[in-house]
Amino acid sequence: MDNIAPNPQGEYIVGVDLGGTNVRAGLLDRDGHVLADARAPALGMEGPQATLGQIIKVIAEAMNQGGAQPRQVAGIGMGIPGRHRSEEGITIFSPNLAGWVNVQVTRPISEHFGLATYMLNDVKTATLGEHRFGAGRGKRHVVMITLGTGIGGGVISDGEIRLGSGEGFSEVGHHIVDLNGPQCTCGSRGCWEAMAGRDAIIRRAVFKLQDGRPSLIGDRTGYDLSQITPALIDQAARDGDAVAREVWEETGTIVGVGLSNLIQLYNPEVVVVGGGIAQAGELILEPARRVVQSRARMVPAETAQIVPAALGEDAGIVGASVLVMLHLEGRPPGGKAT
Amino acid sequence: MDNIAPNPQGEYIVGVDLGGTNVRAGLLDRDGHVLADARAPALGMEGPQATLGQIIKVIAEAMNQGGAQPRQVAGIGMGIPGRHRSEEGITIFSPNLAGWVNVQVTRPISEHFGLATYMLNDVKTATLGEHRFGAGRGKRHVVMITLGTGIGGGVISDGEIRLGSGEGFSEVGHHIVDLNGPQCTCGSRGCWEAMAGRDAIIRRAVFKLQDGRPSLIGDRTGYDLSQITPALIDQAARDGDAVAREVWEETGTIVGVGLSNLIQLYNPEVVVVGGGIAQAGELILEPARRVVQSRARMVPAETAQIVPAALGEDAGIVGASVLVMLHLEGRPPGGKAT
Repeated sequence: MDNIAPNPQGEYIVGVDLGGTNVRAGLLDRDGHVLADARAPALGMEGPQATLGQIIKVIAEAMNQGGAQPRQVAGIGMGIPGRHRSEEGITIFSPNLAGWVNVQVTRPISEHFGLATYMLNDVKTATLGEHRFGAGRGKRHVVMITLGTGIGGGVISDGEIRLGSGEGFSEVGHHIVDLNGPQCTCGSRGCWEAMAGRDAIIRRAVFKLQDGRPSLIGDRTGYDLSQITPALIDQAARDGDAVAREVWEETGTIVGVGLSNLIQLYNPEVVVVGGGIAQAGELILEPARRVVQSRARMVPAETAQIVPAALGEDAGIVGASVLVMLHLEGRPPGGKAT
Repeated sequence: MDNIAPNPQGEYIVGVDLGGTNVRAGLLDRDGHVLADARAPALGMEGPQATLGQIIKVIAEAMNQGGAQPRQVAGIGMGIPGRHRSEEGITIFSPNLAGWVNVQVTRPISEHFGLATYMLNDVKTATLGEHRFGAGRGKRHVVMITLGTGIGGGVISDGEIRLGSGEGFSEVGHHIVDLNGPQCTCGSRGCWEAMAGRDAIIRRAVFKLQDGRPSLIGDRTGYDLSQITPALIDQAARDGDAVAREVWEETGTIVGVGLSNLIQLYNPEVVVVGGGIAQAGELILEPARRVVQSRARMVPAETAQIVPAALGEDAGIVGASVLVMLHLEGRPPGGKAT
């Protein structure tokens, strides 16, 4: 669908990171350095046209800020949440963007700027970024997970990102770790995400407060339990709150069970842990590593390092730029030639 | 370690299938047809030298039967249970072969026949066979599982078998499906294999008989519960026994949970189910498919066919011959050049 080839002479690459709240565009050099960037509300509840307009706006701003003309840009890469037919530039469904059902995404951007434009699921682009420039650098076998509202995953195997037959490879959040576990939003039960995603974390805190446990979490929300957020739990834990620390300990345990599984199934050299919830850092990684130590046996825990993501909030735009690099190198994700 | 190159002029390939009980060698043409074969006891309890002697014996017999001279053979491929450093020709550990710890396997065979000799885990070779000549033919994304004493797995993604960083990719039997589930031989708990492998199946039957349920399984073993085997349960189920049918139904349910997970994690076009326990056929596949239908949601059940293996008892030697073909084609498993 996208017939414009990437421009091998372009010294810049544009990377776009679309989230449910904001969209950010970066102007990068071909070594993944961010030279300029711009941000705007994603207007995700106003429909695809509004959001596509915002994407075009931030791309133009980033290029303008960095003094880049379109002819100096090799191409535009975009990391977009949800399920896609990326080669066709189509989003099949995106959970936090209203009306994004079978939407043609790349063509309007490509036509506006006259530039080759590529897209991929945002966790997959983040994985590309961490593999080439971050915590998975130099490795041939990398698993990345993002802990957030949901749990996303990306897998580099034999040096390339794997997408499977319908870009559903590594839907790690929806693998079942407790076959009789709690209902998941996907319709199954006991999915990893249902037990270690945002809602599960908050539910753990709520249950403890409902048991009458004293906690900074209660003090700081005036015991309005609807106000509890992972960030608030995180801050309480750092301030020494026992309830908050238990929440992370229990969550880390479930994270560890899932990580053990990913080590058995993908045999990576390194597992990179990113996403908003991963801000809790060692509060969650320490119990997770402990569980991996006891549960990852056939493929032993020692074979895979578990490390925090390195690119921080730049992961999205850097990873999106790597997508363009892969097309320039003639090895696009999924293994089919450009 | 193996410095002999495969012979591209060789019209034949030798495939070896080493099991805990028997070793079988086949002489095949380059289209995967079995022209001759020979079998002998593996002597697995007598140590590596005895077994290597048997391997050499059956290879010689198969070549002799088929009238093949070594110079007409492109190479020898071997599927061997356990964990290996295949590129070095070394078995690290094999569960049913006594003393197979850090054993050099390919060199003595290669030196004896003067032929390039390759090895890989037996489930991985079976996957290669089913992909090229069996139930996964023509697909780019295939998962194979073998249901038996344990549960093994092989994954073809983007057309190539994936081994991970230490040949531990797709250790599917040791991914946890019930985090508080029963103890597994690997040291973890609630592994898929601990709940749907041979021992778990027999345990289900034993518990039902201990509850006083009348059953052909009891009649046919004289209620000596140590005599129960999956084959006996299978026959009882086919003869209409309610207890035996429940055992398969319950086992199929757990098989389905694991298959749902593999569909979420590998997004295959087809899942090929082989191994001795899979002889139960639809008795196990029907409940498994039903569970997949309700539990595989994010990557939907419909995206992956679940089918029985097609190569039957030839899978081992055919798959081992494919290993040689891949080396001849310059694309050995793991993606490193020969």
